[in-house]
Amino acid sequence: MKTLWLEKRKLTLRNLPKPKPKQGEALIRVLYAGICNTDIELLKGYMDFSGVPGHEFVGVVEKGPKQWLGKRVVGEINIACGKCDLCQKGLERHCPNRTVLGIYKKNGAFAEYLTLPVKNLHLVPETISDLEAVFVEPLSASLRIFDQIKIKKNEQVVIIGDGKLAQLIARALWLRNKNLIVIGRHKEKLNLLAQLGITTLIEKDAQKDVQRFAPQVIIEATGNPKGLELALKLCQPMSKIVLKSTYAQPVKINLSQVVVDELILVGSRCGDFKKGLALLASKRIKTTELISGIYPIEQYQKAFKKAMERKSLKVILKCT
Amino acid sequence: MKTLWLEKRKLTLRNLPKPKPKQGEALIRVLYAGICNTDIELLKGYMDFSGVPGHEFVGVVEKGPKQWLGKRVVGEINIACGKCDLCQKGLERHCPNRTVLGIYKKNGAFAEYLTLPVKNLHLVPETISDLEAVFVEPLSASLRIFDQIKIKKNEQVVIIGDGKLAQLIARALWLRNKNLIVIGRHKEKLNLLAQLGITTLIEKDAQKDVQRFAPQVIIEATGNPKGLELALKLCQPMSKIVLKSTYAQPVKINLSQVVVDELILVGSRCGDFKKGLALLASKRIKTTELISGIYPIEQYQKAFKKAMERKSLKVILKCT
Repeated sequence: MKTLWLEKRKLTLRNLPKPKPKQGEALIRVLYAGICNTDIELLKGYMDFSGVPGHEFVGVVEKGPKQWLGKRVVGEINIACGKCDLCQKGLERHCPNRTVLGIYKKNGAFAEYLTLPVKNLHLVPETISDLEAVFVEPLSASLRIFDQIKIKKNEQVVIIGDGKLAQLIARALWLRNKNLIVIGRHKEKLNLLAQLGITTLIEKDAQKDVQRFAPQVIIEATGNPKGLELALKLCQPMSKIVLKSTYAQPVKINLSQVVVDELILVGSRCGDFKKGLALLASKRIKTTELISGIYPIEQYQKAFKKAMERKSLKVILKCT
Repeated sequence: MKTLWLEKRKLTLRNLPKPKPKQGEALIRVLYAGICNTDIELLKGYMDFSGVPGHEFVGVVEKGPKQWLGKRVVGEINIACGKCDLCQKGLERHCPNRTVLGIYKKNGAFAEYLTLPVKNLHLVPETISDLEAVFVEPLSASLRIFDQIKIKKNEQVVIIGDGKLAQLIARALWLRNKNLIVIGRHKEKLNLLAQLGITTLIEKDAQKDVQRFAPQVIIEATGNPKGLELALKLCQPMSKIVLKSTYAQPVKINLSQVVVDELILVGSRCGDFKKGLALLASKRIKTTELISGIYPIEQYQKAFKKAMERKSLKVILKCT
């Protein structure tokens, strides 16, 4: 089967044998797979990953338990041991023995086929299209924020970032809170949010007068250490700052400000797919307008080039 | 009157006129004042403070409203404007226009007299001694943690640090949680806690096997950036890390770990004096065993030298 293979920061197209599902796993034919910022960070050396990247996908079960055969599925990316203390507590996403699809010790979705434990799979309802389903993973990660902190209807929330993930967070948040400001660096991307009625601001204008903001919650989703720097400028005492970006480098921060202003920093990662699927099924948010291009897997070089362009949002690979 | 005066990182004994209370203020004769880590950081340039330092004190009201005259008091250190949005919400300790006793634009307690707004004062009940009352400020700051996060009876809590503030936090926490481990660098200081029944550990032993810990809550109270480094080593996914130390330098941290492990960092500063007074009045914790020396204000050089010794805990100045 065709796969993309990452090794020593280089991505190539390889022909590999179809993977054989282990006990408890299903074999899934991948329809589409989305390119995430994490994939771009992996290319830069994040996690030191070698193998098939890709973790946002929709596919069809080809081998596995009868009731799953032929079904259209998405899959949770953390493959937990099921035995450790954290798994026993229902915190499989934090299992210390986990592998992670396309990120850590498990081949991923930029391939014609992948395997995943059946317990990781979620059925995609017919009302959700293939191209919508590709967004289940990042949308669920966006919704994770609401598991972690309470955001009241009227409190001021600032999202820093206007990229793929920030766009999803903004859309999900806008359904709950109309006191939302999104600060970004890309006019066209901000315009997509402005069209929904969301207040947007170009970063350099925001920097001119950081005093005007009084956010109770700031969500940092730029994928860039500068995002946190800005968050620390415009926060107010006791603000919560949700961190959604991962990057390879350690970051210098003024911890005395965190103490004196009693700030709360909340790291936030993956979410429950049921919530992402339910929101997509409700048709209350649109995701397909975030697609900047769809390429057959063979054209991966074009696809990654497109994904790394400043103007791009989600780029999708058609895998079969 | 005699005061200590800090200017350009140098502390001297000065004779200054007795301060005149402004409207709403009381004149307080200082009995005792404690030397805090923040005072030592001020000497190193923290906050760029010039003036009379000192913010932990007990004194007697000499001028002010009749009902306060002759009363023994302690005083909240944040002097708020009372008018801004945060003050209106009851968050006076975070007033952006505040001055802070002995720390920011307000002369402090290392003097025979100080002034403070009457609304900042708290009566000290007779059952609390002068030397106990000096601990109201740092004890209240310790109790602030319980306003900010819920700590369950049985969850594992690790305190990093064995100094003055860590000792108070450990004592207060021990009343609520018996699954407590304190990690420090000073055997004698840890022994004070071990005598209460608290599990203690020398840091270099803790470093040998960080995997053995599974704390839900870590309280960093070392006054040293290395404390957070250790916290990040021994935390588990979704741990809360409470930050109690302020220091002049920015700190490098691995934010990807915060995101991937969904850690929560909580800055924590001053607390409600009513809570500190109530706990002292209950006689459920002892503080006077934390006193390493009491010096008349004229012997401030000896006192500060003692306060900066590795073995020392609280050093107190007798001001009148």
